[in-house]
Amino acid sequence: MEEQYSDVRQKFSDFLERENAIRAALTLFDWDNETLAPEAASMRTAKAYGALSSAYQELLAGDELEELLLQIKVLEGLSPEKRTLLWRVEKERKKLVSIPPEEYRRFSELTAVSVQRWSLAKKQNDFSAFAPVLEEILQMRKAFASYRAEPGQSIYDVLLSDYEEGFTTKKLDRFFEKLKEGLLPLVKEVLRKNKEQPPNCGFLFQNFDVDKQRHWNKWLAAYLGFQFSRGVLSESEHPFTTSLHKDDVRITTHYYKNNLESAIFSTIHEAGHGIFEQGNDDWVTQTLLGSGTCGVHESQSRFYENILGRSRAFWKPIYGKLQKLFPDQLEKIPLDMFVRAINRSEAGVIRTEADELTYCLHIIVRYELEKKLLSGELTVSDLEEAWNRLYEEYLGVAPNTSAEGVLQDIHWAMGEFGYFPSYALGNAMAAQIYVQMSREMDVEALLEQGNLDAITGYLRTHIHRFGSSKGMEELLLEVTGESLNPTYYIDYLRKKYEREL
Amino acid sequence: MEEQYSDVRQKFSDFLERENAIRAALTLFDWDNETLAPEAASMRTAKAYGALSSAYQELLAGDELEELLLQIKVLEGLSPEKRTLLWRVEKERKKLVSIPPEEYRRFSELTAVSVQRWSLAKKQNDFSAFAPVLEEILQMRKAFASYRAEPGQSIYDVLLSDYEEGFTTKKLDRFFEKLKEGLLPLVKEVLRKNKEQPPNCGFLFQNFDVDKQRHWNKWLAAYLGFQFSRGVLSESEHPFTTSLHKDDVRITTHYYKNNLESAIFSTIHEAGHGIFEQGNDDWVTQTLLGSGTCGVHESQSRFYENILGRSRAFWKPIYGKLQKLFPDQLEKIPLDMFVRAINRSEAGVIRTEADELTYCLHIIVRYELEKKLLSGELTVSDLEEAWNRLYEEYLGVAPNTSAEGVLQDIHWAMGEFGYFPSYALGNAMAAQIYVQMSREMDVEALLEQGNLDAITGYLRTHIHRFGSSKGMEELLLEVTGESLNPTYYIDYLRKKYEREL
Repeated sequence: MEEQYSDVRQKFSDFLERENAIRAALTLFDWDNETLAPEAASMRTAKAYGALSSAYQELLAGDELEELLLQIKVLEGLSPEKRTLLWRVEKERKKLVSIPPEEYRRFSELTAVSVQRWSLAKKQNDFSAFAPVLEEILQMRKAFASYRAEPGQSIYDVLLSDYEEGFTTKKLDRFFEKLKEGLLPLVKEVLRKNKEQPPNCGFLFQNFDVDKQRHWNKWLAAYLGFQFSRGVLSESEHPFTTSLHKDDVRITTHYYKNNLESAIFSTIHEAGHGIFEQGNDDWVTQTLLGSGTCGVHESQSRFYENILGRSRAFWKPIYGKLQKLFPDQLEKIPLDMFVRAINRSEAGVIRTEADELTYCLHIIVRYELEKKLLSGELTVSDLEEAWNRLYEEYLGVAPNTSAEGVLQDIHWAMGEFGYFPSYALGNAMAAQIYVQMSREMDVEALLEQGNLDAITGYLRTHIHRFGSSKGMEELLLEVTGESLNPTYYIDYLRKKYEREL
Repeated sequence: MEEQYSDVRQKFSDFLERENAIRAALTLFDWDNETLAPEAASMRTAKAYGALSSAYQELLAGDELEELLLQIKVLEGLSPEKRTLLWRVEKERKKLVSIPPEEYRRFSELTAVSVQRWSLAKKQNDFSAFAPVLEEILQMRKAFASYRAEPGQSIYDVLLSDYEEGFTTKKLDRFFEKLKEGLLPLVKEVLRKNKEQPPNCGFLFQNFDVDKQRHWNKWLAAYLGFQFSRGVLSESEHPFTTSLHKDDVRITTHYYKNNLESAIFSTIHEAGHGIFEQGNDDWVTQTLLGSGTCGVHESQSRFYENILGRSRAFWKPIYGKLQKLFPDQLEKIPLDMFVRAINRSEAGVIRTEADELTYCLHIIVRYELEKKLLSGELTVSDLEEAWNRLYEEYLGVAPNTSAEGVLQDIHWAMGEFGYFPSYALGNAMAAQIYVQMSREMDVEALLEQGNLDAITGYLRTHIHRFGSSKGMEELLLEVTGESLNPTYYIDYLRKKYEREL
């Protein structure tokens, strides 16, 4: 009995190591693909990526794991942590076991090249060049979700629950309705007012030497608490965060010569993600519980980007340094003018450059489109038109080009239908956490002292260390005593933007 | 029958894809480790690397492959190419099947961290900090080789044949004896003369802006024929080349602010390797026959670096461009003075910075030490002293520090005992190929016209496309009608350096 016991444990530990190794390799290929790999590499690399994905599916969906799980589940004395990990492994297994291997392979190869196809179409500003690939990805995603849909469960709900356990269309409809109700009138008023009196922000769009920007943003990430001994800051077309484990966390940003703001807020956003991953406990890193669930992850990146990064208190101790780096451009711009500029609200067409107030409208557009795409109500060929119409409806502006419209985001090219709502959920969670944090510490004073450590420490203790072992609702209940409640977010935005009216 | 036939082929093709995928992932980890990964990552990443290596060993050493090989070998109508690939797979299998899985895993994890340990010891200039790791690597390598040594075969011969099929200590002893005999007297004379009249080369060691160097070396690699649509030039402490396949070939160089020459010749050297890999035929790339055998590979890098890259004809059309980039440093340096400087012979302590004439002596030092380390005649604790003594004996100089001495090369830290002789073999092969090439085309005229394509075309047709499917002796016989003969190399050096006396 003793021997069998330790044998099962050893086998499970071997399984976990291999699971992590193949997943880490796939992560590294993804990272490399987006940051460095030469242009012509993708076709051949996709073959290797596909074969590696197949090996991963085989490992997770194989009979060996099935048997092992049966044996280990009946063992006594498993820690709660181990039980959570088991649950997570079973969830992943259930997903992979339902997909025929050839189809899974095909999908993996497809997504390994589709990102480049998307990127090219975006460069050429031509949605029709990408539409056939998107159609194929969409159909495969739909098929995969259908294989494991519960009776009566919609395809979109299957995908949503992959990203956010327990969140359904029904729940999200209510959530977004509340946001629309609470924010749309304010948005209209702010945008009208800003049209009459455009905020002074031209100074952010002068010529800013890219090497100096690199230097500044690297410093800024470290200032926030991103540890470079355990992380990397690189560049990519579309900023993102990934990690091999808590001691190798990688974030990217993108520099524009004529835009100081873009790289700064990308860097803060991704540093927020990165600090989360670096803060994982040892027992979650290098397992399927590493990283974090999507909405919780976005709550942290948006917390750093907006709640901290756009506050006056945050800039107070460091704005002088930025002025010194760019004296020609910023010497005559006082702190308050700078803070007002980075908090202006504009009806734009680009999600990643949207201000806090209008950001959720960008998500609502995508949410409504995804829902219809997945149900079949909307086809890929009609997608661009529908996109432009919704932008007109919610934001009063329509993109001039595909690149600034339906092609702007990478998510669908990667097959990630159902991810977008997590951004909005993350915003709401961030505001709710902020209210609680402010009850426990003087956040503004800490920011003014440049004491980011205290803030990051709070987040690590309450959120980061758990990786994805706890979902959004569980964390919110533990930290704030309340489940997700968008009222805090609406109040936060009202308080902030009504001041400007 | 027909069905079984296609079933075996399909299974073999699946095996090859997976073999390539895991190997590519390991390659990518190695690349990443040396070019980008953060400092604190190595311990955790080594775990993933180890698990992936185990998966590789399992795949190659498993019963499934054994059976498959038996079935496929008796199939009729296999192409000669397929037979070569089968032979190569069996060679790799034989190697891996002999090593107990725990030991293989341990070794993989060890080498994944030992490079960082070596790098740290080198920085701290402390051989004793690295010696215990080296001892462990050495003992494991010895054990692994012993598991598959033929009766009467020495451990070092087992390792040599991994890198260079058919080369033994006996053969190499003769080869190096000939080199010593042919070159030592000349070396002594040249060094004596250069001590009396030191060559004018100080202008190479002024302040050269690193960004400008980056720009120049990228241009230079492209000029040589390295294709950036299918390749990458990055930076690392120790320049090297690797590839995921022919359409994703990666080279590195290292820039020093006060040394123009170092990065240029590293870049040309690695571009030579890179052009080889980019020139692989489709049927060899993404298989164990991709890349090239070590000596053949080095013959190409050294061909580009020395035979082309140090010739006057090579610099004639492009030196003006370099002068324009660095007018303050080079305006007053005429072409001939530049060419003389980059061809000066000096008794140095660093292999990678050695001139053509003394280079092989650096290899002879390592060859003699390796032979004794592997036989047990020399211990790791006595290694540094022995190293310094041999440098004194052959080159008349001894390193002042461990970093410039026994710690200078990465090879042993990676467990690569037996690789060094390939550099010398490569030099000899390069000269032999050059003599043949010169019979068929006017190399000097082509260089003066800047027509590198014709030269690369010749090498691709005769060497690059075969990857490692042909060994050094086979290629030399096919291209020159003669097996390896160091006389060409000795003659080449004599002709070049006797002019200077």
